[in-house]
Amino acid sequence: MKSRFLLVFAIAVAAGAQSANDPLPSWNNAGPKQSLMRFVSDVTTQGGAHFVPVPERIAVFDNDGTLWTEQPMYNQLAFVLARVEQMAPQHPEWKTTQPFKGVLEHDAKAAAASGEAGMVRLLAATHSGMTTDEFRKTVSDWIATARHPRFHRPYTECVYQPMLEVLTYLRANGFKTFIVSGGGVEFMRPWTEKTYGIPPEQVVGSSGKTQFKLLPSGPVLVKLPQVEFVDDGAGKPSGINRFIGRHPIAAFGNSDGDLQMLEWTAANPKAEFVALVHHTDATREYAYDRQSSFGKLDKALDEARAKRWTVIDMKSDWKTIFPNSR
Amino acid sequence: MKSRFLLVFAIAVAAGAQSANDPLPSWNNAGPKQSLMRFVSDVTTQGGAHFVPVPERIAVFDNDGTLWTEQPMYNQLAFVLARVEQMAPQHPEWKTTQPFKGVLEHDAKAAAASGEAGMVRLLAATHSGMTTDEFRKTVSDWIATARHPRFHRPYTECVYQPMLEVLTYLRANGFKTFIVSGGGVEFMRPWTEKTYGIPPEQVVGSSGKTQFKLLPSGPVLVKLPQVEFVDDGAGKPSGINRFIGRHPIAAFGNSDGDLQMLEWTAANPKAEFVALVHHTDATREYAYDRQSSFGKLDKALDEARAKRWTVIDMKSDWKTIFPNSR
Repeated sequence: MKSRFLLVFAIAVAAGAQSANDPLPSWNNAGPKQSLMRFVSDVTTQGGAHFVPVPERIAVFDNDGTLWTEQPMYNQLAFVLARVEQMAPQHPEWKTTQPFKGVLEHDAKAAAASGEAGMVRLLAATHSGMTTDEFRKTVSDWIATARHPRFHRPYTECVYQPMLEVLTYLRANGFKTFIVSGGGVEFMRPWTEKTYGIPPEQVVGSSGKTQFKLLPSGPVLVKLPQVEFVDDGAGKPSGINRFIGRHPIAAFGNSDGDLQMLEWTAANPKAEFVALVHHTDATREYAYDRQSSFGKLDKALDEARAKRWTVIDMKSDWKTIFPNSR
Repeated sequence: MKSRFLLVFAIAVAAGAQSANDPLPSWNNAGPKQSLMRFVSDVTTQGGAHFVPVPERIAVFDNDGTLWTEQPMYNQLAFVLARVEQMAPQHPEWKTTQPFKGVLEHDAKAAAASGEAGMVRLLAATHSGMTTDEFRKTVSDWIATARHPRFHRPYTECVYQPMLEVLTYLRANGFKTFIVSGGGVEFMRPWTEKTYGIPPEQVVGSSGKTQFKLLPSGPVLVKLPQVEFVDDGAGKPSGINRFIGRHPIAAFGNSDGDLQMLEWTAANPKAEFVALVHHTDATREYAYDRQSSFGKLDKALDEARAKRWTVIDMKSDWKTIFPNSR
C-alpha cells in the first residue's frame, strides 16, 4: 500500500513539475505552441543567427477577438449602450431621436438604421463632453460591474487564458508587450494593466481629440467630439510607427482589421512571428469568420494560410478558453 | 613625507567616494539639486506620506533647450537647411523659388520672408515623400556628421551633462523617463536611446501622417506632407494623455511651449516636481529669455516664480554644461 501511494505521489509531483516548467499550460502541444516556443528560443539565443537584443523584442496584440471576446458585439459597444441608458434621464430628447430612441427601446434595427452617422452620434454622446479623468472613472465603474450576456462574468474575465500565458511568457523572455487595437485607447487603459499586465503607455488605440483647459479648480483635459486617429486596418502600422517607433518582431491578430499589422510585422528583416486567432469553438466561445461583420477574415485567413503564418485554431489548440473566475 | 602623502591620498579617496555616492555630481549643491533629491526621497520612501508606486513614477522632459541646446536655431532646423542643400541638385526649380532660393544662397532674410507658409514648404520637402526607414537613415547620417556651429561638436554632445545625470538618477529610482517635445518624433527617435537612454517608445513629439503601402518588395510606411499632431504648448498635455496615458509626477521644461505641461504636472494630486531650465550662461552656453523667439519665457518664468516651481539657473546651478567629448 505504502509503495503504491508513493508511486502515485511521485507521478503527481512529476506532472506538477512538468506543468510548472511549461510556460503555456493551456495550449495543446500542437503546431502553434511549438512554433511560438521555437521562435522565442531563436530570438533569445545569444550568438544564434536569429538573436534579437532585448530592446527590440516588441510584440503587438490586437485586443477585440485576440485577447478578449468580441461577440455578440464589441464590448466597447456594450459600454456605449449602457451609457446611453444611464445618461438618458439628462437627455429627454433622446426619447424621440434616433439612434438613441432605438437604443433605449432595445430596438436594434431602428438604432442600426441610423448607420455610421448614428454610430458617430452615439460615440460622441458617450465619449466626449467630459474630462479624461471623468471618462476614466466611468469606464472603471462599468467594467467593474457589467457582465457578459452569455458568460455572465465580468468582461475582464472574458479574456483568453492561453493568450494571458503568451503575454507572460513573452515578457519573461524580455519582450515588451503592446496592445494595438481599433478600440478606444481611453476605453482600454483603465483596466489593461490589471487584466493583461500591459501598462497604459503600452496601449495603442483609436482616439478622439482632447483640449487642455485651465479652470479655477486646476487644469483639465476635455474630450472633444472629434476623431483624432483610427487605429484599424492600414492605420495599425501607422499607429505602431507613431506610438512605438520600432518594428515589431511578433504580432497577434484575428481579423482583416489586423491584416496590415501582420503584414508589417512579417516584413521585419530581423525576425518575425505572425499569428492569427481563428474562432472555431461555438461551444466554448464562438465560431465565426467569413459570415460575421465582426472579426471578418475575408482576406486575413487566406493570406495567413498562403504565407504560412501561424493560424491558431481555438477549438483544437486551446485546452481552456477563459481563466478561472477571480 | 610618507605620512603626508598618505593623508593627501586618503583625502583624494574620500572625495572620490563622495562623488561616487553623489547622483548629481555636475550640480552645485544649491536649491534645485536639494529640491529634486528631497522629492525623489519622498516618492520612493515606502510607507511615507508621498510614496508613489513604481509604475506611476512618470517623468517628462522637453527636449530643445531642456536636454540639448536650441541656439542659435533649433537643431532640427539646421537639419532642414542641410537637407535642402543636399537635395538641391534634384530640384533645379529651387534656385528660383523661395524659401529654397534663400536657403541655398544663405540669405536668411529672403528665406524668412516666406513666413510660416515657407517653413511648411521646407518641412514638407525634407520630411515627406520618403519611407519612414529612409527618413530614419537620413537623420542618422546627419546626426553622425553635423557639427554645432559654435561648439564644433556633434549635436548629440551639445546635451546638458547635468540633465543626463537627472535622467539616470530618476531611472535608478524607478522612474520611466519620457521626452515630450515640440520637435518631430521621427527626427528624435534615431538618436535618443544612445544619447539619453530614452527608447523610441518613450519619445512623444510632433508628427506628420504616414500611409501604409504594400509594394511588390514588401510593405512600407510613406511620410505624407500633412501634419498629424503638434506636440507644443497646450498640445503637450494632450500628447501626454494620448501617448503615455498617465499623469506625470515630474516635468522639466524651459519655455512657454512647456507651460501647460508644467501646469498639468503640477496639478497631479499624488506628488509633483516641476522645473524650468533658465538659460543664464552666455559664456558657456547662451543667455536668453524674454528677448528671444526661441525658448520664450514671457509667461513660464513668471508663473514658475509665482508658484514656487524649481527654477534652474544654468550659470549658478550647473558646474559643467556639456559632457566630455566621447
